[in-house]
Amino acid sequence: MAQPSHSYINDGTPRNGIVLLPVETGTVPPQCSHLLNPEEFRRQGHQVIDFIADYYASMLGEYPVHPSVNPGFLRRELPADAPLRPERDAFDAALRDVRDLILPGLTHWQSPRHFAHFPASSSTVGALGEALTAGINVVPFTWAASPAATELEMVVVDWLGKALHLPESLMFCGGGGGTLLGTTCEAILCALVAARDRKLADIGSRRIGDLVVYCSDQTHFAFRKAAHIAGIHRDNCREIATCRDDMFALSPAELHAAMQADVDAGLAPLFLCATVGTTQTTAVDPIRELSAVAAAHGAWVHFRHVIDGVEAVDSFSTNAHKWLLANNDCCALWVMRPSLLVAALRTEQEYILKDVAAEGHDVVDYKDWSVTLTRRFRALKLWLVLRCYGVEGLRAHVRSHLRMAASFESMVRADARFEVTVATQFALVCFRLRSPEKLGGEKTANELNRRLLKEVNATGSGPYMSSAMVGGIYMLRCAVGSTLTEEQHVREAWKVVQDQAASLLRKMEINYSVVAE
Amino acid sequence: MAQPSHSYINDGTPRNGIVLLPVETGTVPPQCSHLLNPEEFRRQGHQVIDFIADYYASMLGEYPVHPSVNPGFLRRELPADAPLRPERDAFDAALRDVRDLILPGLTHWQSPRHFAHFPASSSTVGALGEALTAGINVVPFTWAASPAATELEMVVVDWLGKALHLPESLMFCGGGGGTLLGTTCEAILCALVAARDRKLADIGSRRIGDLVVYCSDQTHFAFRKAAHIAGIHRDNCREIATCRDDMFALSPAELHAAMQADVDAGLAPLFLCATVGTTQTTAVDPIRELSAVAAAHGAWVHFRHVIDGVEAVDSFSTNAHKWLLANNDCCALWVMRPSLLVAALRTEQEYILKDVAAEGHDVVDYKDWSVTLTRRFRALKLWLVLRCYGVEGLRAHVRSHLRMAASFESMVRADARFEVTVATQFALVCFRLRSPEKLGGEKTANELNRRLLKEVNATGSGPYMSSAMVGGIYMLRCAVGSTLTEEQHVREAWKVVQDQAASLLRKMEINYSVVAE
Repeated sequence: MAQPSHSYINDGTPRNGIVLLPVETGTVPPQCSHLLNPEEFRRQGHQVIDFIADYYASMLGEYPVHPSVNPGFLRRELPADAPLRPERDAFDAALRDVRDLILPGLTHWQSPRHFAHFPASSSTVGALGEALTAGINVVPFTWAASPAATELEMVVVDWLGKALHLPESLMFCGGGGGTLLGTTCEAILCALVAARDRKLADIGSRRIGDLVVYCSDQTHFAFRKAAHIAGIHRDNCREIATCRDDMFALSPAELHAAMQADVDAGLAPLFLCATVGTTQTTAVDPIRELSAVAAAHGAWVHFRHVIDGVEAVDSFSTNAHKWLLANNDCCALWVMRPSLLVAALRTEQEYILKDVAAEGHDVVDYKDWSVTLTRRFRALKLWLVLRCYGVEGLRAHVRSHLRMAASFESMVRADARFEVTVATQFALVCFRLRSPEKLGGEKTANELNRRLLKEVNATGSGPYMSSAMVGGIYMLRCAVGSTLTEEQHVREAWKVVQDQAASLLRKMEINYSVVAE
Repeated sequence: MAQPSHSYINDGTPRNGIVLLPVETGTVPPQCSHLLNPEEFRRQGHQVIDFIADYYASMLGEYPVHPSVNPGFLRRELPADAPLRPERDAFDAALRDVRDLILPGLTHWQSPRHFAHFPASSSTVGALGEALTAGINVVPFTWAASPAATELEMVVVDWLGKALHLPESLMFCGGGGGTLLGTTCEAILCALVAARDRKLADIGSRRIGDLVVYCSDQTHFAFRKAAHIAGIHRDNCREIATCRDDMFALSPAELHAAMQADVDAGLAPLFLCATVGTTQTTAVDPIRELSAVAAAHGAWVHFRHVIDGVEAVDSFSTNAHKWLLANNDCCALWVMRPSLLVAALRTEQEYILKDVAAEGHDVVDYKDWSVTLTRRFRALKLWLVLRCYGVEGLRAHVRSHLRMAASFESMVRADARFEVTVATQFALVCFRLRSPEKLGGEKTANELNRRLLKEVNATGSGPYMSSAMVGGIYMLRCAVGSTLTEEQHVREAWKVVQDQAASLLRKMEINYSVVAE
């Protein structure tokens, strides 16, 4: 591929550094109309749709979920510079490269054999909603900057909130309100900054160093990261220890003790991040009790996922791109008092056209609800998903995964060599090979299970799972959640685990006395 | 539309609050295979492609750029709840509603007559890159979580950096590195947090209240917002005044004075955000001189856009979704020392499968380069754009806008009733009706131009522009940047401005002595 010659710069260096600006005056006027030519779009668009459909229909099943590649494998294959001019039929050539160079090196999150992490659920409508959004390409940062996009967002967060049985106080229809952000990390950061500003207004704006945030040792690290970004001192993040006997749930008594100790030390409890369905083991924090403890200290309570006691929280977020068929990215955040969010994230200095409409009560300028100004029209996708599958359709989708996870769990329980390490509450099964008695010790068991996971994932044609280390126990995680996963994939996955375990135990000369439970 | 009946909950309230989970045991197993059925995807996908192509071909030209609607117009039209079950042919019905209900209420950013804000440039390949990304739907938060996606991102940020003539120190090939985020706001926030942590490590981790950040009164408010989110006290953000004589550029002497005053007061200069092409008037800050001042105080220097003196900066960001045909969203951030970014944004507690590859030097885990964990495979889109249009194609695209802006500027200059308020440096023309002598005063002129913009935007069939208020002067902004904008649209836009001005001046009985310059 040709190296850029930079011939447009007379002396080889950028004039004023603005290298994209014209230097020569005799340039032939370019024909830019092809850049968004409807007929070219139609032709290439149909190609892309067929490409994706073929990926779902056949390619996805053929690739290992996780590629066997080494770092640098792709960087070495690609030229060091962008082409100065496109090659002939560049789009066709690029699609071929996607197929031949890129797809074989991806981890296929949509594979029916992807059981790692948590799913990134896809659907026909979710994917096409993204395509439509990208095609229309509006930027609804204020109501005026795209009224219908803003209003659809207001409608759809209320729709989703009602489907999740959130209290009306978190919805527009009840005086609260919601927005669609990219990720949980953003949602927590926004809620945290709003809470921080409210607290600092109470205790003095210079006391940021005294603010303390609370979570459990199971809380997703997105929370600690958000707290750090928001300027909370790393020493002021209390990770309250959980234990296996409590199913790794955050203890209200421990939270109370921690908050009281901080108050006694002259510090200010700021924020509690509780979770229903933690990342490692889907532990469920007791929301109602925790909220009561936090309320006594005037701390903001943010929850992730759907829970009993949600009436008491200040904010709530859930990822529609995780289980609700809205392809990446789409995280809904609801707050009881939008004005606190706006106070923290508003932008004083405006360059935009002030619309008279902006004075009205029905107007939301979503740029003041998030970190970012430029934002995508995510509501279109979520609206299409809710419209085309219905609330019952989403429920059926989630239930099918719960059923498959229950099925996997019962297969694990039926094999005496294995144990389910944490009772399955959602669609994540945490399990491991039991610690062999004659070898003893968790360390040995951990090593054994680490090897097991490695062997399982190395099969290529088998499942791809991840792991967790909780309370000193290493466990395998089988998270059922890919849209294409069916009962047969779960059964096959378990078969591969059993086969690899048998082979590993044989190699290591370990014998269990196999007794079905 | 039917209200959700919640019939799946026996007593009408969510059991354990987990409303998406099954309660009944006798549910019929749902058929979820249709959710990602390749043939359904193919059929509906072709519909969506044709829908978008038709939008470009005809609908875009027919709609007013900015709809004449009042707040609540769409919320009133839509049901208060999501459907429990989809209606028959829900997808077709939903597409009809997009056409009939939603499109008429959008601000059409892709209209060739959209001259407001800054453009959100679209291209065939950019839109289809998004569609492809959404279809494949991987989550490249670590190298292991999708090796090819991570490596393509590393390749493409170097490609773009070279095309922009960035110093190698900001690129992977020179020991730095880049990433693709959603927006400038995120990019600045990440750089700011990295700078903050480095500085606090130097001066003491409890001194966040002493950190001071610097910008000009022209700097985009995204910077102040990012600083606020990062815990910098609002009193510690120095907005250095600019003036019209300096073309609203940030003065190195003023910066030096501000920094010195802060140091004398026991404060710590942290961060300078300079800009090439400010939002209001595309003012250009003198990067090299400013960097020298900042360096003397150990402050991190971040620049937006492409500039002379970039060798001296710590980080640099530019939006590929603004002018470089990569549909929303896509902001490239480069840093000279990625380790500082990772130190600030890394996540200590891991649940992911540790891959042996993660030990290697070629491995980048992009989750540690940004606020968010979940991230989209944006590199695919940008790679396709660079591949299919080439660096020269992007340059030609940018140049065509510069040419059209120059053309608009010369038309303004040829009409003695108008003045160009700030000399055009990029593709933004700032202009206004001159202050009529007999009326006098900037306030009157501002009011006159405010009315003019309102009239221009109200024509519906005409252009849509926005405004700026700089140095007490209200001006109209004509930002050329939509992919579909051609010379004729610029001429027509100017004609509408002239006609509306004439009509307004007639109504107000204002006479200029019209003399061509």
